[in-house]
Amino acid sequence: MEYDLIVVGSGAAGLSAAIYAGRYKLRTFLIEGEFGGETATAGTIWNYPGFNGIDGYELMRKMKEQAQSVGVEFRDGWVKEIRKEGECFRVLIEERSFHTNTVIIATGSRRRHLNLPNEKELTGKGVHYCWTCDGPLYKDKIVAMVGGGDSSVKGINFLSAYAKKIYFIVKEKEIGAEPLNLEQMRKLGDHVEILLETEVKEIRGKEKLETLILSRPYKESRELAIDGLFIEIGFDPDQTFAKQLGLEIDSKGYTKTDSMMRTNVPGIFAAGDATNHFNNFKQDITAAALGTVAATAAYEHYKANGKACDLHKKVP
Amino acid sequence: MEYDLIVVGSGAAGLSAAIYAGRYKLRTFLIEGEFGGETATAGTIWNYPGFNGIDGYELMRKMKEQAQSVGVEFRDGWVKEIRKEGECFRVLIEERSFHTNTVIIATGSRRRHLNLPNEKELTGKGVHYCWTCDGPLYKDKIVAMVGGGDSSVKGINFLSAYAKKIYFIVKEKEIGAEPLNLEQMRKLGDHVEILLETEVKEIRGKEKLETLILSRPYKESRELAIDGLFIEIGFDPDQTFAKQLGLEIDSKGYTKTDSMMRTNVPGIFAAGDATNHFNNFKQDITAAALGTVAATAAYEHYKANGKACDLHKKVP
Repeated sequence: MEYDLIVVGSGAAGLSAAIYAGRYKLRTFLIEGEFGGETATAGTIWNYPGFNGIDGYELMRKMKEQAQSVGVEFRDGWVKEIRKEGECFRVLIEERSFHTNTVIIATGSRRRHLNLPNEKELTGKGVHYCWTCDGPLYKDKIVAMVGGGDSSVKGINFLSAYAKKIYFIVKEKEIGAEPLNLEQMRKLGDHVEILLETEVKEIRGKEKLETLILSRPYKESRELAIDGLFIEIGFDPDQTFAKQLGLEIDSKGYTKTDSMMRTNVPGIFAAGDATNHFNNFKQDITAAALGTVAATAAYEHYKANGKACDLHKKVP
Repeated sequence: MEYDLIVVGSGAAGLSAAIYAGRYKLRTFLIEGEFGGETATAGTIWNYPGFNGIDGYELMRKMKEQAQSVGVEFRDGWVKEIRKEGECFRVLIEERSFHTNTVIIATGSRRRHLNLPNEKELTGKGVHYCWTCDGPLYKDKIVAMVGGGDSSVKGINFLSAYAKKIYFIVKEKEIGAEPLNLEQMRKLGDHVEILLETEVKEIRGKEKLETLILSRPYKESRELAIDGLFIEIGFDPDQTFAKQLGLEIDSKGYTKTDSMMRTNVPGIFAAGDATNHFNNFKQDITAAALGTVAATAAYEHYKANGKACDLHKKVP
């Protein structure tokens, strides 16, 4: 199959890129990865301008529908490789591959792990990374949240509807969250116990999570018995395609782009959390905007170079 | 009255800045100017990610409601002057003035005129700049659209539901519009007569618009009798506040900002069409994103410098 544009990723950036690309009448194909990216599992989104509260998954579903209505094709699955072939690119997914003139990389970033022994083994058995997905499992249980940023505070506010007790384990001296979310957490009172300047040193448990060993004592013990652990300590960009294509990255591993989201490889664009366009400010609204910019740049590239691509030599 | 932030302008950029500022718990005041900016009169918006078609005014109303729900105060009226006073700013509106720590300028840009004799006199009497507002007046009449860009094509598609004949007067050799909008216009067939490489030289009429004089003949006459003329030839940034505050502007008159929408004057931020962040790509979604970035930078400025401002010396 041949396309003018393949979008990799189905978060706010990828879907918004697809909406614009469809309107530009580019033959556009979007390969989803995990549908809806980070947003789909973020719970209620209060700050996307236009929606005074919308479930993240629902917002992503609306964007997908909007892209489909202008002819964008969707497919679930994961891209294994993006390969440059002459003036075109070949995108490999499972056993198939697709030719395209341009690619937008909107793969977001990957959740950080604590990288402790047992962490992987106990994932899903008490250790979790998605509080909207797994929080409801902890009705009347005791949980801990490892974090300190805005998402972890949002997570605690969410978990407070289920868990009877929440320990908030924060490595830093203070919590860095959006004031409105912080205020909401403060109102939970001693439902939430905040342990500042504290780290998780060990995760213990056999068949399932049993206790944490902390870097310093809490109530005279370094051992904390809990039912569930939620880890919300940020993200790192996925560098797979940057390495395959020789894209320039910055010191934090984000793909470098110019102001129109062009990478150093002509025909390859990046958008959303895979880039660091607005420094550490990564939001649905900024990801969406950067997606539309990348689609616009891809459209301009296609108009200027599309015919130079091998694919199009076949077209009479 | 004292505020942490005053936002000037109520288009997508200003309203989105207000939503974020409210969530940051900044005491935020928004002075509207013309409510909803360009978007409010743009007709149906199809490309704002999340809404598969929404009236522009309705979208702006939703954003206003969202900002109000987090405590932002609104006021209609026009800002006359922004004056630096020590570390603070004074914002003058009619007979009143307000003190603030920070200002976000989101004043968009001004519609371009043809600058022909009679143009001003006949505005509202056959000459129009807002097709969504005034298009419905021309049911079964003959109108002309002066333009060539995407908005003018959208305008023609809109007007086609009313006017029985539309002349599209384009200075350039070709039309530069979003392919989907262009395709829709093409389907109108001879309902629309396209006059390329043609300019309006004179606007004639006494009590109301009667004829146009064109730069070259159409059907052997340079005189074209019409009922209504719609002028959609782009925008220029409003430089009023840039001049008052000594803000750096680029060669096209847009306020220069860094990647976080900071101007050269600490405490003053700009967002949306008053800036040229994504070159000539000016959309609701990009304006909204830039608004949220500006609010974030204003919040950071306030946290770092708020107390240095005279206003806060009064606070114990």
